[in-house]
Amino acid sequence: MTKPVCYSTKAYLTNDAQSPLGAATIERRSPSPSDVQIDILYCGVCHSDLHFARNEWGFTMYPCVPGHEIVGRVKSIGSGVTKFKVGDTVGVGCLIDSCRTCPSCQAGQEQYCDNGMVMTYGSEDKVLGGPTLGGYAQSIVVTEDFVLRIPAHLDLAAAAPLLCAGITTWSPLRHWKVGPGQKVGIVGLGGLGHMAVKFAKAFGAQVVLFTTSPGKAADAQRLGAHEVVVSTDEAQMAAQAGSFDFILDCVSAVHDINAYVNLLKRDGNLVQVGVPAQPLAVAILPLVFRRRSISGSLIGGLPETQEMLDFCGKHNITSDIELIRMDQVNDAYERMLKSDVKYRFVIDLATLT
Amino acid sequence: MTKPVCYSTKAYLTNDAQSPLGAATIERRSPSPSDVQIDILYCGVCHSDLHFARNEWGFTMYPCVPGHEIVGRVKSIGSGVTKFKVGDTVGVGCLIDSCRTCPSCQAGQEQYCDNGMVMTYGSEDKVLGGPTLGGYAQSIVVTEDFVLRIPAHLDLAAAAPLLCAGITTWSPLRHWKVGPGQKVGIVGLGGLGHMAVKFAKAFGAQVVLFTTSPGKAADAQRLGAHEVVVSTDEAQMAAQAGSFDFILDCVSAVHDINAYVNLLKRDGNLVQVGVPAQPLAVAILPLVFRRRSISGSLIGGLPETQEMLDFCGKHNITSDIELIRMDQVNDAYERMLKSDVKYRFVIDLATLT
Repeated sequence: MTKPVCYSTKAYLTNDAQSPLGAATIERRSPSPSDVQIDILYCGVCHSDLHFARNEWGFTMYPCVPGHEIVGRVKSIGSGVTKFKVGDTVGVGCLIDSCRTCPSCQAGQEQYCDNGMVMTYGSEDKVLGGPTLGGYAQSIVVTEDFVLRIPAHLDLAAAAPLLCAGITTWSPLRHWKVGPGQKVGIVGLGGLGHMAVKFAKAFGAQVVLFTTSPGKAADAQRLGAHEVVVSTDEAQMAAQAGSFDFILDCVSAVHDINAYVNLLKRDGNLVQVGVPAQPLAVAILPLVFRRRSISGSLIGGLPETQEMLDFCGKHNITSDIELIRMDQVNDAYERMLKSDVKYRFVIDLATLT
Repeated sequence: MTKPVCYSTKAYLTNDAQSPLGAATIERRSPSPSDVQIDILYCGVCHSDLHFARNEWGFTMYPCVPGHEIVGRVKSIGSGVTKFKVGDTVGVGCLIDSCRTCPSCQAGQEQYCDNGMVMTYGSEDKVLGGPTLGGYAQSIVVTEDFVLRIPAHLDLAAAAPLLCAGITTWSPLRHWKVGPGQKVGIVGLGGLGHMAVKFAKAFGAQVVLFTTSPGKAADAQRLGAHEVVVSTDEAQMAAQAGSFDFILDCVSAVHDINAYVNLLKRDGNLVQVGVPAQPLAVAILPLVFRRRSISGSLIGGLPETQEMLDFCGKHNITSDIELIRMDQVNDAYERMLKSDVKYRFVIDLATLT
């Protein structure tokens, strides 16, 4: 194929699993008729960014520019773009394309595309070749169908994590119809968990936060939890047995999910959004004796992501963040590994100069 | 409490985990106003009977009279009984009472009773003390609300396994709305699996039977399977990836359920009705990447059991059985351990003399 017209932009990247991220120049395609060119203002730092940069999942293509919690402003649009205009506040999440024809895509569940979604970073770039390059950059070009409107009155830095941490927790809470009259557990108070607490509270559920850290209780209540259970305390756990309609498990480490399954009512469901690297040992009897379920859920589709952003605009919901400079990202990774962040790092791209 | 009036009846029982079952005389309560006294004609032999007789689950009270797939004829009724009359063909399944007031009981899901159902054998007998005594006997007395109508034109011996193997597979297929246009997998062709194949076929689904025994293919097709997959054949399994709406896993041994989870479509569900004694290793990524679920299901409630029996009467569905004499039950247990039965042993209680 003929290489399309490109332009250069600054980014932060690594060329191998061992090196820290550093400044470099990358190429983006010039906008095609359906493309939106975005000046990136902020980009959230997701744990996946670290996994990917360090090739911990084993399929990273280099160079690797992480970042899929992108908020920016439209700089230019292709001739066929109808949904956006120059100056709009927009977002880009974990995916930038999909086949658009399979049943999942047709259902607006592009993240489950039967032919494989195109991830914002780390997928094969069908236009330029090589890997797609993410949001640790000054600029990005994305087809308009995968660009989202961000309510302009929100704190834009704090809105960035909605694009991954937000939708990852919103989608299962909505899909399984969490709402008033239900008792809902959220396991783990990190980037995902703190958004789940905010959403479950906003949906009218009774929210219980499970944590191994008693010191997080006050913060969980500030974020909206009605109750905090220290999951290492057997008596506290036993007191909750059989009482939950729904539990969202945001823990990515290998852990005992049977302890949480036992807290579900008949027909209750535990949904994993954290993805432990090793299989979990699941006792079958507690599933059988109350017709309970264990499910998984992956980010969200474009329509539901827009629905979430509009809801966040209306209810003024954003992430609790710590804003960092671009050159602090390697330190941020180390702090993230120690869970030393409340609750999401967001990069101010104005500092990438 | 004053011991109620009782009568004697012959039964087959064991007094400890090591001894074979043998003939003995037991006492039943004389019918109270709400009770139905049943002359037992046939009783199916469930794998649970063996587990219980041998205390393999660790909570057997002795003496143990197994048997919870009971078909018989009403011999007498209490003064307040309105649903049955002398001579009716009736059945008793796995449970003979529950609290009747908790949300599960109110929903007709008495098997999930929050206060614990009373099992047909092995629960505490609240009237007589000691354990409840099951259907390897000439007679039983059960409160009318836990007695089921058996369509009299069915082969009554072959109808007995409907009370456990039947409802155990019927309930999840109905609860998760298996029907036309769906591709449904049944794992394992034993007492449960062969009933699941018949029901899934009757509900209009495309039925695929998974077995480790290539020799079972012809029989599976005779029972209604549209396709048979040998689960140890990786190529056959790979060809089915991502194509199932629903899988009912009837295997009680520890096995790799991830191999089946990977066969589910987006939003597909694998339901375990077999209960392996050890936890299963469950990979989380395949759940997350297609929003799949794993659930459990336990027998069924009274209303749905009656619905199943009426359906079986209408469609002339029964179990494939091998009729045995009462004194053959110990040998039957040994054959059951070798899966040497097509597909359920049923005891002819006329042979207990």
